[in-house]
Amino acid sequence: MFYHVKELQFNARVSKPDPRFAKLLLEQFGGGNGELKAAMQYFVQAFGAKDPYPDKYDMLMDIATEEFSHLEIVGATIQMLLTGVNGELKDAAGTDEIMQLLDGKTKKESFIHEAMTNPHFLVTSGGGPLVTDSNGIPWSGAYVNAMGDLTVDLRSNIAAESRAKIVYEYLMKLTDDPYVKETLGFLMTREVAHFQMFQAALKTIEPNFPPAVLQSDPRYSNTYYNLSSGNDFRGPWNEGVSPGLGETWQYIEDPLKQVIETNGLLDLEPKGTKRTLESMQEADKKLSAIRSSEVKEVSPPAENQWSTFLTEEQK
Amino acid sequence: MFYHVKELQFNARVSKPDPRFAKLLLEQFGGGNGELKAAMQYFVQAFGAKDPYPDKYDMLMDIATEEFSHLEIVGATIQMLLTGVNGELKDAAGTDEIMQLLDGKTKKESFIHEAMTNPHFLVTSGGGPLVTDSNGIPWSGAYVNAMGDLTVDLRSNIAAESRAKIVYEYLMKLTDDPYVKETLGFLMTREVAHFQMFQAALKTIEPNFPPAVLQSDPRYSNTYYNLSSGNDFRGPWNEGVSPGLGETWQYIEDPLKQVIETNGLLDLEPKGTKRTLESMQEADKKLSAIRSSEVKEVSPPAENQWSTFLTEEQK
Amino acid sequence: MFYHVKELQFNARVSKPDPRFAKLLLEQFGGGNGELKAAMQYFVQAFGAKDPYPDKYDMLMDIATEEFSHLEIVGATIQMLLTGVNGELKDAAGTDEIMQLLDGKTKKESFIHEAMTNPHFLVTSGGGPLVTDSNGIPWSGAYVNAMGDLTVDLRSNIAAESRAKIVYEYLMKLTDDPYVKETLGFLMTREVAHFQMFQAALKTIEPNFPPAVLQSDPRYSNTYYNLSSGNDFRGPWNEGVSPGLGETWQYIEDPLKQVIETNGLLDLEPKGTKRTLESMQEADKKLSAIRSSEVKEVSPPAENQWSTFLTEEQK
Amino acid sequence: MFYHVKELQFNARVSKPDPRFAKLLLEQFGGGNGELKAAMQYFVQAFGAKDPYPDKYDMLMDIATEEFSHLEIVGATIQMLLTGVNGELKDAAGTDEIMQLLDGKTKKESFIHEAMTNPHFLVTSGGGPLVTDSNGIPWSGAYVNAMGDLTVDLRSNIAAESRAKIVYEYLMKLTDDPYVKETLGFLMTREVAHFQMFQAALKTIEPNFPPAVLQSDPRYSNTYYNLSSGNDFRGPWNEGVSPGLGETWQYIEDPLKQVIETNGLLDLEPKGTKRTLESMQEADKKLSAIRSSEVKEVSPPAENQWSTFLTEEQK
Amino acid sequence: MFYHVKELQFNARVSKPDPRFAKLLLEQFGGGNGELKAAMQYFVQAFGAKDPYPDKYDMLMDIATEEFSHLEIVGATIQMLLTGVNGELKDAAGTDEIMQLLDGKTKKESFIHEAMTNPHFLVTSGGGPLVTDSNGIPWSGAYVNAMGDLTVDLRSNIAAESRAKIVYEYLMKLTDDPYVKETLGFLMTREVAHFQMFQAALKTIEPNFPPAVLQSDPRYSNTYYNLSSGNDFRGPWNEGVSPGLGETWQYIEDPLKQVIETNGLLDLEPKGTKRTLESMQEADKKLSAIRSSEVKEVSPPAENQWSTFLTEEQK
Amino acid sequence: MFYHVKELQFNARVSKPDPRFAKLLLEQFGGGNGELKAAMQYFVQAFGAKDPYPDKYDMLMDIATEEFSHLEIVGATIQMLLTGVNGELKDAAGTDEIMQLLDGKTKKESFIHEAMTNPHFLVTSGGGPLVTDSNGIPWSGAYVNAMGDLTVDLRSNIAAESRAKIVYEYLMKLTDDPYVKETLGFLMTREVAHFQMFQAALKTIEPNFPPAVLQSDPRYSNTYYNLSSGNDFRGPWNEGVSPGLGETWQYIEDPLKQVIETNGLLDLEPKGTKRTLESMQEADKKLSAIRSSEVKEVSPPAENQWSTFLTEEQK
Repeated sequence: MFYHVKELQFNARVSKPDPRFAKLLLEQFGGGNGELKAAMQYFVQAFGAKDPYPDKYDMLMDIATEEFSHLEIVGATIQMLLTGVNGELKDAAGTDEIMQLLDGKTKKESFIHEAMTNPHFLVTSGGGPLVTDSNGIPWSGAYVNAMGDLTVDLRSNIAAESRAKIVYEYLMKLTDDPYVKETLGFLMTREVAHFQMFQAALKTIEPNFPPAVLQSDPRYSNTYYNLSSGNDFRGPWNEGVSPGLGETWQYIEDPLKQVIETNGLLDLEPKGTKRTLESMQEADKKLSAIRSSEVKEVSPPAENQWSTFLTEEQK
Repeated sequence: MFYHVKELQFNARVSKPDPRFAKLLLEQFGGGNGELKAAMQYFVQAFGAKDPYPDKYDMLMDIATEEFSHLEIVGATIQMLLTGVNGELKDAAGTDEIMQLLDGKTKKESFIHEAMTNPHFLVTSGGGPLVTDSNGIPWSGAYVNAMGDLTVDLRSNIAAESRAKIVYEYLMKLTDDPYVKETLGFLMTREVAHFQMFQAALKTIEPNFPPAVLQSDPRYSNTYYNLSSGNDFRGPWNEGVSPGLGETWQYIEDPLKQVIETNGLLDLEPKGTKRTLESMQEADKKLSAIRSSEVKEVSPPAENQWSTFLTEEQK
Repeated sequence: MFYHVKELQFNARVSKPDPRFAKLLLEQFGGGNGELKAAMQYFVQAFGAKDPYPDKYDMLMDIATEEFSHLEIVGATIQMLLTGVNGELKDAAGTDEIMQLLDGKTKKESFIHEAMTNPHFLVTSGGGPLVTDSNGIPWSGAYVNAMGDLTVDLRSNIAAESRAKIVYEYLMKLTDDPYVKETLGFLMTREVAHFQMFQAALKTIEPNFPPAVLQSDPRYSNTYYNLSSGNDFRGPWNEGVSPGLGETWQYIEDPLKQVIETNGLLDLEPKGTKRTLESMQEADKKLSAIRSSEVKEVSPPAENQWSTFLTEEQK
Repeated sequence: MFYHVKELQFNARVSKPDPRFAKLLLEQFGGGNGELKAAMQYFVQAFGAKDPYPDKYDMLMDIATEEFSHLEIVGATIQMLLTGVNGELKDAAGTDEIMQLLDGKTKKESFIHEAMTNPHFLVTSGGGPLVTDSNGIPWSGAYVNAMGDLTVDLRSNIAAESRAKIVYEYLMKLTDDPYVKETLGFLMTREVAHFQMFQAALKTIEPNFPPAVLQSDPRYSNTYYNLSSGNDFRGPWNEGVSPGLGETWQYIEDPLKQVIETNGLLDLEPKGTKRTLESMQEADKKLSAIRSSEVKEVSPPAENQWSTFLTEEQK
Repeated sequence: MFYHVKELQFNARVSKPDPRFAKLLLEQFGGGNGELKAAMQYFVQAFGAKDPYPDKYDMLMDIATEEFSHLEIVGATIQMLLTGVNGELKDAAGTDEIMQLLDGKTKKESFIHEAMTNPHFLVTSGGGPLVTDSNGIPWSGAYVNAMGDLTVDLRSNIAAESRAKIVYEYLMKLTDDPYVKETLGFLMTREVAHFQMFQAALKTIEPNFPPAVLQSDPRYSNTYYNLSSGNDFRGPWNEGVSPGLGETWQYIEDPLKQVIETNGLLDLEPKGTKRTLESMQEADKKLSAIRSSEVKEVSPPAENQWSTFLTEEQK
Repeated sequence: MFYHVKELQFNARVSKPDPRFAKLLLEQFGGGNGELKAAMQYFVQAFGAKDPYPDKYDMLMDIATEEFSHLEIVGATIQMLLTGVNGELKDAAGTDEIMQLLDGKTKKESFIHEAMTNPHFLVTSGGGPLVTDSNGIPWSGAYVNAMGDLTVDLRSNIAAESRAKIVYEYLMKLTDDPYVKETLGFLMTREVAHFQMFQAALKTIEPNFPPAVLQSDPRYSNTYYNLSSGNDFRGPWNEGVSPGLGETWQYIEDPLKQVIETNGLLDLEPKGTKRTLESMQEADKKLSAIRSSEVKEVSPPAENQWSTFLTEEQK
């Protein structure tokens, strides 16, 4: 259950209206890496975590709720940057009046030019935020990554926070308003904070690599295919030892040759690894038992209730 | 700023898992008339209302927050209806084990059949809700209608609540689970309650017709064009007096004839109305002054702050 | 079956080309509240109305057909505003020639600048309308609301007309062309006319509240939850009597407290209403019988034919 | 301006309800190759053709209007195939009643199963068509191809009719209803008729190859790059003479070698063609003058009017 | 299996950075008629062609691979046109530094203005290409037309190449950079070359009209309906002989009259054609046998393998 | 420049046709975490990396090319699983023939049932893959994350590989075909291999935290807000030391209280960290200089060329 208080989490301010920056800032309201995406992603991930991993559920809901609060901060800032637009649009009968939204521009021409590069604020929203990105693309539920496994979802979150962080960084280059920069700096920093929370949470799950349950096939887990020829490079991603499994990278200079010689890789033998098909299957079996039982143990046989009120049976 | 408490607003329960109904219920989680749409619509409308119409702002945020809480109820119900799916999917290595998700069906075949008609829960979400409708279409920011004018927005809300209400009504036909019906009944009723709140709020704005500021042109406001011929009907929508403006409907039996005779309607004279072009323009001017000043009066000249903390200047 | 005549319903004219306003006007061609949306919404709603409610079917098809005619007016205006663009683009080999599309701007630079803020007309459509909104977002079938119930659909239409009306109002602020304003004024007025037609039609259906068939639950239909705290307001939406059901609003100052005390609202007792669970169920039963029979009575047992030609059996 | 008559262009009938085929048939209502796409494509293309090519404008509007009429036929058929669904859904209070929509299936279970595989008809549309394809994907304005040039647009139309034709062919495999097959056969045949109309119209434009105005570069117009190796084939697409320009195909066995030897193709010399860079530029200049003047000649200098009423100046 | 070499197929160059043209050029990277669409369309069509029509499979994969190479050329050009943007954005702490991206514009203002009309490069991509069109609309899988029949698919390809060609033609009007024009000229020419390849391939399939398998109904294949009245025209598309079937066009002056007189066209008799319902069915049967056997003959009964390695059975 | 060889990278096989699993497998062809997404993401990221970071460019293009090869493997498997569908659909005239696609089901009914749950293969693609996910949702360019910074992009890739891995894991639960499982196992393992390559590459960039250039604000980087109350938990994500910055987590039990006491966090002082606003700005300045110069140094002043051919100037 959600509550709302009318104060913002951060004292967001603007120095003056700036419809152009308002347009750019929409990216973090309804864009692919914006606050609504973050809020919904953690909120949706939380449902499945509640019973088996109540500590992670608590964290996900704490952060999801903060992201909704950030969405409000971004929306409030957009609204303040658009001060004057709505009033001017309501002055519908006036044809002589000239709006002065932009510094030093006093002609209706500039208003119309604004509308052309920025149609949503003037033609559809009437001077308020919309659930779109800075190009006017509507927010999409496809932005949300929630796969039902914390070792995957937390990694999605770390990446999502990284992207949200860089968008705020880019936005800070594009405004001179010190108040707006202040707010952007706060929001950017919170992404860094959340990044570390998800990272810390991921570390508490063991094993967390490979993500999810199944092991990788030792025949294919350490081969590197040189499929782009010319100016080739070697580095820790294709020589030495792989960081997750500790296997020795096998650099395949001529992938087609290997494919043909191994009956389309079917006859490839594991190299540079101690793992075998047998050890892989055993590990699969073992982890599978653990992970599925974590979830199954807390699954009620039939009747189910979300809240902590006494059930009919318990009464 | 948002807060969250872990209890749901309504004690949502399920009698047993039912992945098929979970799929249908997605319609109200991430569908075009679902809870996320409602929550976001009122939340976005609220930004522009805050300063000029703080009472409506309060109402919009009260209801938006409730809709977020309903979104949580729907998501929790979907999660409970999917009990068992996530645990089964994590049992990844097991090939002999057979899931028993559905009453009386114990074969892997039924699991696969389920996946085919319902791929998202098994292939992508791992047994939890997604931000899509019942067909798997991702939620879109385009669902949100917020136009910067309460006489328009409140009408959008009344319609939105009507649609949300009927979807719950349809869903109740498609489940036999008494617990789920209980929850659907609560959610459906709240749409009816919200409908009335928006209706009451609309009445407090005068005039609220026509929506927004400008009057309609008396030459064209009361003509009815018979453009679909055969089995024609007359009713209060094309005879007698129009409900909003109180003008006498002019039924145009042969629209093309009128178009040609009036130089493409340019030479049409107002009929069945006391309004004139002059009275229209005067009314435009008058309401325009009122509406724009309502907004402009509360617009700070430059520096702006959302919360009620003392500003730099005030300190 | 549709017919077309080459004259427009309204004598649309432009004073001079204006590609920038053409871009804005796209909002009403392929935008979420534009003419295609309106036309398709009423057209799709009409199918289900034809047999049980032939009078409403007639009205919906009359208006749908007018909206298609308005779509043509908007498209024609866009095309006229783009006069010159197509011819210039076809002058593909010319590199010296300079287009003079915009008053006072004679450099190729301005043509390129135009293209940047407005790419669709120059890069994809070759100087004609597209089925997108003013941001270039393609029209979506998701804009159409048709739920199979006139008490819901007519409300959707009233809201849709309100939104279409305000977009025309906003657009009139953004052009100085008196001919274009004339056309916009006509189209805006027709939205007001249609609004009243739908309103009048809705009134002929009794009861029409709550929308659709099912009654609301008297325990939950008149509670108002104060979920956004700080600067709270009271008004007819949360005090006094509710406008639809005539129940007394119950203002819940502390919603969480109520939730916990009532076992998640399950134990809440109806207050401020004469309705009971029993009276609700009876009303459901009664209206259900009426509404379903209205449809079922006109449903042929098996073979079905849309037109009025004699069927095989009748011959 | 559009007119509507309530009889369909074709006497569409169904033998009995069939919600499953209704779902498939949606493909031609709101799908990517369906009737709405066709109608809108020709309608949008027509705007630019009206002044310079009034004969093609007439043809495009004749066919567009027929496609709107076909859209109505498809929608009417879907509605008839769904007979009973709406009435059953309105019987909202009934929990004992059992629907009998499908032959031989009388249990509520089958109704629910239907809903799961086919959610839109039961959960959102209430038993009527929607503006989506058979998967529930909303129709998109991006389906419409209109590029402002008839040599391009007519080819888009020929392809569009081909695709629409094969979808009807596939659909005929999936129903046994002789009435429905009759309607599908009519609609399929009309696609073949339209195909030929567009083909005939394209032939009247000379030259129509290459599409649009500019010639192709003789250095690159007849090379064929063998970029997929293994089991290579030769045919009239890479040996002999090219069908449009009558040049001799140059088969490049080893494309990379050619790229490196010719400084990234910059130094490639035309082969197997009589055309030169000079002749190309001359042809560009010539056709450019013709095509642009066709459009420019009919472009009024400033004021513009779509219909044939006398303009202010002419009066 | 794909390989990549780091040299481009064409030596793409730019004279200087030009972020504005980079935006327009996105149309051919991630737009509806761009290189990704072409590459994916032919690639997807190829799967079904591989076994029954290996020569067409070879051609489709040759061209698909070239289109991927063109996608790389377009992306590389966009990246070069954006030179400086990424470096400037990374100079995140600098507030005094002024970027000089555009000739003669040295103020931060111009950078911000750029961002407003072109947000993706500055706010989201950090100065590189995105998988969108020039309006920022994300590329959609719906752009790809692949229907499982070469007589349809090749026609889709001919139309697709026509559209891609004209977009390059339009783009050449919008840049003065001779190097960029050079590249656009190459890419435009390749579309013309591919057009001819597909045309030549289509001719090798007999019969290829009507597309797919089924014949058209002789009652409906040669009627032309005059559904748009006023300024009517006659031409080879509605008089004389139809180009595909060689039937005599029947011009229906008054379509409604015909519909009513023929019981909704059901009683229409074939005219102007030698074909009959019987001959149609016979032809259907015959071609059906041929076409289906072409595919079925190469369909293995059960086990299947894509590559040419020896199967388990063959070993 | 891309090359293609007709052998697959892996010897993909199927035991028998299985259209139902083909539908599920579409998730990895055109789904949000599928092979096309992966291929395009790395391909797009590579453009910006080429000049400043040629080693990472090589790696990105090696892996992108492998992902295109995997896309081909998935498409080939879908095509083989659909063996028989295309041939059956081409047998268009046959009404007596019965397809036997599915084991033990020989009635046309099953074919139609298949079509209903799976319309794309039968109604639109004619028995081949489509560029959609398993629900029929078209692939979207919005799936691609490429932000112009390797410390962000590599993290996006690690998350993307995690998601792709789990989808293959889920898919393996849903098929019994040992050949298909073999292929899925290979593809799943390659995601694990790529995961490690990106991880190794990320480690070679120092510093790589926070992602991008700017430091975080020490006032806000280590606070944890308890915004979801009830059943709260403490863990390394909100107590002890943060993993990235090594700061001490500040757990804010009552966030609203802190907000009000600190003037909306503006007056908050850094706690539990050695960093200050000054040290933050200095670090920003320093890293900014490094990162921007890495890019700017390799940016040619004006003329630019992608390939390694000698430029005009160099010759």
